[in-house]
Amino acid sequence: MHFSFEIEKKAGGSRARAGVFGTPHGQIKTPVFMPVGTQATVKAMTSRQVLETGAQIILGNTYHLYLRPGHELIREAGGLHKFMDWHKPILTDSGGFQVFSLSELRKLSEEGAAFQSHLDGSRHLFTPESVVLVQEALGTDVMMVLDECTPYPADLAYTKNSMERTHRWAERARRAWKNGRQALFGIVQGGMYPALRKQSAQAVSEMGFTGNAIGGLSVGEPKSVMYEMLDAVVDILPEEKPRYLMGVGSMDCLVEGVHRGIDMFDCVLQTRVARNGTALTRTGRLVVRNAQYARDFRPIEEGCDCYACTHHTRAYIRHLLKADEILGATLLSIHNTRATIRLMEEMRGHIAAGTFSEFRDAFWRAYKG
Amino acid sequence: MHFSFEIEKKAGGSRARAGVFGTPHGQIKTPVFMPVGTQATVKAMTSRQVLETGAQIILGNTYHLYLRPGHELIREAGGLHKFMDWHKPILTDSGGFQVFSLSELRKLSEEGAAFQSHLDGSRHLFTPESVVLVQEALGTDVMMVLDECTPYPADLAYTKNSMERTHRWAERARRAWKNGRQALFGIVQGGMYPALRKQSAQAVSEMGFTGNAIGGLSVGEPKSVMYEMLDAVVDILPEEKPRYLMGVGSMDCLVEGVHRGIDMFDCVLQTRVARNGTALTRTGRLVVRNAQYARDFRPIEEGCDCYACTHHTRAYIRHLLKADEILGATLLSIHNTRATIRLMEEMRGHIAAGTFSEFRDAFWRAYKG
Repeated sequence: MHFSFEIEKKAGGSRARAGVFGTPHGQIKTPVFMPVGTQATVKAMTSRQVLETGAQIILGNTYHLYLRPGHELIREAGGLHKFMDWHKPILTDSGGFQVFSLSELRKLSEEGAAFQSHLDGSRHLFTPESVVLVQEALGTDVMMVLDECTPYPADLAYTKNSMERTHRWAERARRAWKNGRQALFGIVQGGMYPALRKQSAQAVSEMGFTGNAIGGLSVGEPKSVMYEMLDAVVDILPEEKPRYLMGVGSMDCLVEGVHRGIDMFDCVLQTRVARNGTALTRTGRLVVRNAQYARDFRPIEEGCDCYACTHHTRAYIRHLLKADEILGATLLSIHNTRATIRLMEEMRGHIAAGTFSEFRDAFWRAYKG
Repeated sequence: MHFSFEIEKKAGGSRARAGVFGTPHGQIKTPVFMPVGTQATVKAMTSRQVLETGAQIILGNTYHLYLRPGHELIREAGGLHKFMDWHKPILTDSGGFQVFSLSELRKLSEEGAAFQSHLDGSRHLFTPESVVLVQEALGTDVMMVLDECTPYPADLAYTKNSMERTHRWAERARRAWKNGRQALFGIVQGGMYPALRKQSAQAVSEMGFTGNAIGGLSVGEPKSVMYEMLDAVVDILPEEKPRYLMGVGSMDCLVEGVHRGIDMFDCVLQTRVARNGTALTRTGRLVVRNAQYARDFRPIEEGCDCYACTHHTRAYIRHLLKADEILGATLLSIHNTRATIRLMEEMRGHIAAGTFSEFRDAFWRAYKG
């Protein structure tokens, strides 16, 4: 078997669990945060810098890589790992989300999602089968099925139809999946309707994917609604397979997601807010660009072991941001990624030590949002 | 003595020499190329990445740092070394060149250079004395005197008047220089007039600076004219002090400068062309952005030991450039800086081995420009 998932320890008073997800490019200790490398690069960082943040797996975007440089070019390069010099596991999404958020003039049909490229207007069709083939060309460890990320808000009828098509697409993707060296994850949809979410979790679980993802959350709904949706599905998703909450990565949501039994997370937040001059810390956001930090010679976050915090001050990073220097984005991307991964590492340690609930309480006492 | 300069070896059939320039932040093996860190960062690189290129000394820009974040803030931070986490030597220019190339509404008088900030239009005056004070606040190892970088072309009368004022300013700077832990270099001007250049070299040499720089070259004149100006002054500048050719750093000019007895160089070329998608190599420029490299899975330069060449392909870096990813600029900046420093290291080795002339001949056979 190229893939395995073992639960080492479950937390008391919580659904949180510490596991190990085995893949052809190595083992991943869960719960895990996956930095996003949309275009074959985690933005503003070298792959060595990403490795130094403690990242165990990164995410690539099928939609972007398919359009540029093209999956066939990446296949020629020896696959995405070699192309971008990242030799630990990689997960690729199916491109579904980007078709809905980035492309022009998309048109959904039973066959798939037709769209025009946001780069040059060229016309393309993603089908459940074609996105498996694209991800096979990329050679990534974990592939995702094509789904429709239901818009928010959406009425019950739309959400139900969308979910049912997503299930039919998932089944087609599963049948197209031939390569045992690449895992395939299904995706639960169902909008903000607990009954649909449960139905979706049941349907996707029964298809027998390597792992199960929860999509269509963090799309504008209140966090309490997101947590409600997680509570609705987690117990239906098989215990013995990894659970992945897509596109969610703020520190509070990570703590609550782990508490609810999620094993994997990804988010662009870390690198996106970095480029806007904002640091993520255990107490909330620090807008390093602000004038109040001009003469603040402390690190971004006391106690942080990242390259930025062990070498540079808020005053220096603020100067870089004000002067539009690339290094400002790089240093904040390093900090935000490492700070997030450090949170995951600590949560895993507390699950193993049986102190996760106390950790979660302490987190919420410190966190100001 | 905080500063020393020893010549270890002179090349045969050439003015090239291998030396060691001792400073409070360590020894510099010359000839040396100094990467430019205009705004307290060598653009797109961390200080660790700069260190890994083999850089022994970097350059900071007094004009930029004075305006933003301000030299007093950098003094409070513990000096420029600490502010930017660079613990090897730093040289700062006097700001003269930037006043002429960047600022608005500059007005020269005997007193100094009045100008308006290119950032916010605020009014400032640089005098020979004030720029020494600013550089003392920055705490750099090597300070430069305020000079006028004579425009090109300029007639004899303008050039002579400008040069003579530069000499008077140099003398005032020398008198303002109190701190033995910071070296001060004079600057030879004289436009494209060999007689003025000789006169300037004589005058500046007699003032007794720690080292002597040649300014006002590579400002638009043909390279043959630049070499003629170097030939005019080098033998007048004291043998036992470092000679610094300001703002020059293309590979061909480095070889010819070293051949003419220059010990120190700086240039923005390496990082500037990197951000435009161009690599510097021993055979000339490689426009990595070009379509011909889309499927070229070789490193930028065969045999290069830089991080980019040992980890990535032309195809990958081209993809990053086309996708406007910051990492493309970072990787090319690393390559261009390392490739230039490797050239300097090789030249030093050939001077020591007595084979510099053969190296120079071989360089010119390979170099296509």
